[in-house]
Amino acid sequence: MSLTVVGSVAFDALETPFGKRDKILGGAGTHFSLSASFFTQVNVVGVVGGDFTETEWAVFERHHINTDDVEVVPDGKTFFWSGRYDYDMNTAHTLDTQLNVFETFQPKLSEESKNARLVFLANILPMLQKEVREQCERAEFVAMDTMNFWISSMKDQLIETVKVVDCIIINDAEARQLTDEPNIHKAAKIILDYGLKAVVIKRGEYGATLFTKDSYFVVPAYPLESVFDPTGAGDTFAGGFMGYLAAQNEITNETLRRAMIYGSVMASFNVEEFGTERVDRLEYNEINQRFRDFKRMTHFDEIPFERSVTA
Amino acid sequence: MSLTVVGSVAFDALETPFGKRDKILGGAGTHFSLSASFFTQVNVVGVVGGDFTETEWAVFERHHINTDDVEVVPDGKTFFWSGRYDYDMNTAHTLDTQLNVFETFQPKLSEESKNARLVFLANILPMLQKEVREQCERAEFVAMDTMNFWISSMKDQLIETVKVVDCIIINDAEARQLTDEPNIHKAAKIILDYGLKAVVIKRGEYGATLFTKDSYFVVPAYPLESVFDPTGAGDTFAGGFMGYLAAQNEITNETLRRAMIYGSVMASFNVEEFGTERVDRLEYNEINQRFRDFKRMTHFDEIPFERSVTA
Repeated sequence: MSLTVVGSVAFDALETPFGKRDKILGGAGTHFSLSASFFTQVNVVGVVGGDFTETEWAVFERHHINTDDVEVVPDGKTFFWSGRYDYDMNTAHTLDTQLNVFETFQPKLSEESKNARLVFLANILPMLQKEVREQCERAEFVAMDTMNFWISSMKDQLIETVKVVDCIIINDAEARQLTDEPNIHKAAKIILDYGLKAVVIKRGEYGATLFTKDSYFVVPAYPLESVFDPTGAGDTFAGGFMGYLAAQNEITNETLRRAMIYGSVMASFNVEEFGTERVDRLEYNEINQRFRDFKRMTHFDEIPFERSVTA
Repeated sequence: MSLTVVGSVAFDALETPFGKRDKILGGAGTHFSLSASFFTQVNVVGVVGGDFTETEWAVFERHHINTDDVEVVPDGKTFFWSGRYDYDMNTAHTLDTQLNVFETFQPKLSEESKNARLVFLANILPMLQKEVREQCERAEFVAMDTMNFWISSMKDQLIETVKVVDCIIINDAEARQLTDEPNIHKAAKIILDYGLKAVVIKRGEYGATLFTKDSYFVVPAYPLESVFDPTGAGDTFAGGFMGYLAAQNEITNETLRRAMIYGSVMASFNVEEFGTERVDRLEYNEINQRFRDFKRMTHFDEIPFERSVTA
């Protein structure tokens, strides 16, 4: 098995200027694994309550996602998040968070999950991320996410986790907060110096940036006239990024760059509808079409300027 | 003569976290023409006072910029702007504005200036921009800038000017304000529908975006660890953009894309030092080196994903 993700499987209630949903499938582990499933076989490690129904399991089944390591607590309730977006769709306003069974989540990895070539540690307690990373001894490439809450409440422990992964995928505000450095290029260098191979900084409507020791790569966001629901966009990006890499023989600057594009492609679909709705019914030709769109919107011919006498 | 710019020639007083200058050469016409002069012959149309000295004229002379249409009002004073940047270098705080001779500026174009193939109308009163555009009957491609002040105080007149140019080069806040449309892609379409060939939206540290009827192109900003003085970055961008186009035989989607890169290259140098200091002593090999850097930081190979059975 090539890719394992550890993270939340949840119910979301969402309100956007375009509509609302009372209880739909969500969570970082869900969005990530659904996105990655288009590229590779995914194991998801998480926990749900007895309220998780056939409808939700069917989403994972349709995409051949291995849910053996999703623990079910029959008398517990699934993690529930409720949020609202106003016209500034970059900012989620949390209305309610009920951790429920997720509060005491202890990831239990089967041999299959442990032996994955690639591992993604979605946003959970940094110490848990580190424990999982140490269990996956054979992993070639481990990436992590985090959030402002852990950066402000336990930065030292978080940095200990950062030091044992190969890649971090965070947004620009988190990169600045983690390093106390307002300049994003300096911030990325500080993080790379913890020993990482790659730092990916997500910049919302401005796209994403990849920093490695010897390369710098920028991908714009896909031009969308309306963003319907941004929930899960970051995890869907990470799923496309890691899923694509898991399907490659080698992780190089070249495959990392294409992984940035596939991550952006998947995220661009995710925001077009509520929750997992759009990605759930996505087709391969749509993915490759949008990949080509990214090439078209960034390509220019390299013709150096030579001033002629008549110019 | 291939390129004419009409705009301010000024003195600036600047304070940034990195230092200050009491009275240095500035103004949109200055930054634009200096930048464009690396690509083509430029005519600058403007007005200065008797306080404009040999030191300032020498900057134009060094770059073979034609200043015949810069009117000198011997008993007047040159336009003076004083501003401060805090650590957020995206926002200029105006401390003082003395329009002086610029207050009654009436652009007077010689035949040489009128006959330019390309014309740039830097940020001045929209009605004056329209008058100038109408005088340049032989111009193949006319671009304009504007600012929030004109958009809020005389939008109707401004739109009449927009309708007679080929290209507008503005920042994202201005595009939103001009169209009352928060989504930048919808805003650009509204502006294109006024009959323009190209809309260029500058997005500061996030780069710039080109919209034409049938093409969309995004260029990131050059990665800089510190921005020393952003004054004139927008006009320096426009100068590289228009200067490069003036040196090409045709204005096509391909040359417009490379013009976006050269504009970004020139702007990236401008912000490295105060005022015109860095661009004044720029060398061609530095420009082409940075052009190649832009290629490197945006290039990826177009290899569509094919899922193998074993992945």
